[in-house]
Amino acid sequence: MAKLNINKNRLWENILTLSRMGAVPGGGISRLALSDEDKLGRDLLCSWLTDLGIRVQIDKVGNIIAIRQGKDETLPVIIGSHLDTVSNGGKFDGAAGVLAGLEILQVMEEENFVTNAPIGLVAFTNEEGVRFHTDMLGSRAFCGELTPDEVWRIRGVDGLLVGEELKRIGYLGDFPCGSIRPRAYLELHVEQGPDLDRAQIPIGVVEAITGIAWLEIIVSGVSNHAGTTPMDQRKDAGIAASKMITFLPELAKKIPNQTATCGRFSLSPGMINVIPGEARFNVDLRNIDSSRLLEAENNFIAHSRQVAQQEEVTIATEVIMKVPPEKCDKSLVSLIESISKTLDYHSQRMVSRAGHDAQILCNFCPSAMIFIPSQNGVSHSPNEYSSPADIEAGANVLLHTVLQLAA
Amino acid sequence: MAKLNINKNRLWENILTLSRMGAVPGGGISRLALSDEDKLGRDLLCSWLTDLGIRVQIDKVGNIIAIRQGKDETLPVIIGSHLDTVSNGGKFDGAAGVLAGLEILQVMEEENFVTNAPIGLVAFTNEEGVRFHTDMLGSRAFCGELTPDEVWRIRGVDGLLVGEELKRIGYLGDFPCGSIRPRAYLELHVEQGPDLDRAQIPIGVVEAITGIAWLEIIVSGVSNHAGTTPMDQRKDAGIAASKMITFLPELAKKIPNQTATCGRFSLSPGMINVIPGEARFNVDLRNIDSSRLLEAENNFIAHSRQVAQQEEVTIATEVIMKVPPEKCDKSLVSLIESISKTLDYHSQRMVSRAGHDAQILCNFCPSAMIFIPSQNGVSHSPNEYSSPADIEAGANVLLHTVLQLAA
Repeated sequence: MAKLNINKNRLWENILTLSRMGAVPGGGISRLALSDEDKLGRDLLCSWLTDLGIRVQIDKVGNIIAIRQGKDETLPVIIGSHLDTVSNGGKFDGAAGVLAGLEILQVMEEENFVTNAPIGLVAFTNEEGVRFHTDMLGSRAFCGELTPDEVWRIRGVDGLLVGEELKRIGYLGDFPCGSIRPRAYLELHVEQGPDLDRAQIPIGVVEAITGIAWLEIIVSGVSNHAGTTPMDQRKDAGIAASKMITFLPELAKKIPNQTATCGRFSLSPGMINVIPGEARFNVDLRNIDSSRLLEAENNFIAHSRQVAQQEEVTIATEVIMKVPPEKCDKSLVSLIESISKTLDYHSQRMVSRAGHDAQILCNFCPSAMIFIPSQNGVSHSPNEYSSPADIEAGANVLLHTVLQLAA
Repeated sequence: MAKLNINKNRLWENILTLSRMGAVPGGGISRLALSDEDKLGRDLLCSWLTDLGIRVQIDKVGNIIAIRQGKDETLPVIIGSHLDTVSNGGKFDGAAGVLAGLEILQVMEEENFVTNAPIGLVAFTNEEGVRFHTDMLGSRAFCGELTPDEVWRIRGVDGLLVGEELKRIGYLGDFPCGSIRPRAYLELHVEQGPDLDRAQIPIGVVEAITGIAWLEIIVSGVSNHAGTTPMDQRKDAGIAASKMITFLPELAKKIPNQTATCGRFSLSPGMINVIPGEARFNVDLRNIDSSRLLEAENNFIAHSRQVAQQEEVTIATEVIMKVPPEKCDKSLVSLIESISKTLDYHSQRMVSRAGHDAQILCNFCPSAMIFIPSQNGVSHSPNEYSSPADIEAGANVLLHTVLQLAA
């Protein structure tokens, strides 16, 4: 079984080459979905696939799909992840999974190894949800959760539409979404958390993926002069919003396995000598248990309403995005575990506290994820790092899992 | 003495006409210093002065200076205020004072009334300090507190230099700063606070002007993934900054007559699913007592350091602007009071909790201010309003104070 092996150095070099697309000073990568930089990354992947002689197809939402035919015309095993990054993100998030898939196809080409079932690689559009706030956009359309038309009409933070941007960068394809039903979906990804690195375990076998709720809160007070408005006559939207945000760590303490984060916050009019009349902020809530996630949402909103009443401001709250927690396919989890053992890699079962394309695929076909360590748990940062050895280990586990499924 | 009177309707019409320069949807005015809109306002004032046959001179920092000669070549009485506004500000802040001065010159021209001393009108550059963060910039240069060269090199929030912007809008003059030593400086201004409106008193006689300190706080934590970073391993700059900001109302309660405001706040990288690694915010502290103002500064910084330690983040604090409290000239204060009485307007002595050009002039020559009511105390807002009758009252008190001083 362990005849085929991925080429560690080539995979590492490919990761470094891809990381030059959208590189920013300081070592980070900004390859926001459907940006010029994303186009560079996509073009590079397509050229590598084409060089291997594998046909590249682009679907209606820009997912890059490459299927290597097997002996049988049957359902394919799909390896997937994404090429887009957050602003000033790292080299490995998404890229490691896509390029591990490319490496697997390349190894099989080199060895003229033909599987029974076809093996496909998919690089999904806009997994991060940073530019276009619906994350995992490509996988949602791939699985028919959103129609291409719904996807095209999504507007980014810069006001531009997905449909226009797909066209502009040349990735508005005509391959129909939802037409591939995978036999199994597998995704290699960096953990983005500290557990594997601390435990010095190279392989994480993901059993379940966190649920995520994104809230948008708009606090409306009264804008007024910072000097002449008596303190007891203010309706300061910024003070009220700050009191709502400082509750987040308390909220996370109250509910088991809960995270709560505010990453975006703005004051309006945003002037040094003007009491802010409006504050807008977003909250990211995550839990592996859907009822606890709902409890966190309700709890946060109730607390915010209470603060608003005390501070004599009004609030509008909206859940702008929600993905329920998902369980990975049990037999795939067991298979990955046993293959890790066969290949002599230590593994541990774990949950993913980040959202992933696999989360969407879980509802569509048997799906599972392989995690590899993130140094110090750092991710979405220029300091994101996974070692060549860990990437090799993960890619080998992925290769042999795929081979087993496609045999 | 009360022979001359200002023309209430003309003054009101002039205020409305000026308010069209930089008008934005919703009724507000955005005439940021040295913007295209500011140029429109300046051009209008200059054309009105020129139509009166009064020579307009522009000094090296763009202050607009118009002197109406008297019988004697002696020190002039200067009336001043500013044309620039905050973003989406009101029609009266600054404009009322400048246009009351214009009206006074026009009344004297119409009546061929010649004073002994010259009477001058000055519209100062960048009083608000919103675009270029040193506020009262024109008056500081007028009084020699800053050299033109220092002023030119100040960079705005948009990255542009005062010197370049003066040149671009055609207001880089050659009249030397500091060459006019006023016999007295008088400024009419809207109160921007609620006291006169509540008490239904038309004239406020300003005895002292608040001290202001502007702080900039940079909180540095560690940017990381909002899902995968355990709550107890975060160094969240946003949570820390929010805790610093929520202290402001407490601080203002502890120190008599203290105001404390945060009007600007930003998180970096500013993404919904990323723990903020950096937070930047500004604090506006005001007190009429300089030792209490210093106490507030020190107290806020000490509290912020304590929060930073608890939250395991670091902070850098800087006092980016400071104006000490100033007392108005006692004999001018008495004169304004007695003239109000003669003209049969109720008046009350008060302090200004907003900064004004008069604050800078206080150190340069005998200076005082006349306040008129702001409806509901609202200012720096499209809803800023002072009635035609109140503006007439203030302008008449200003006119007769000027006549008395220039006689």
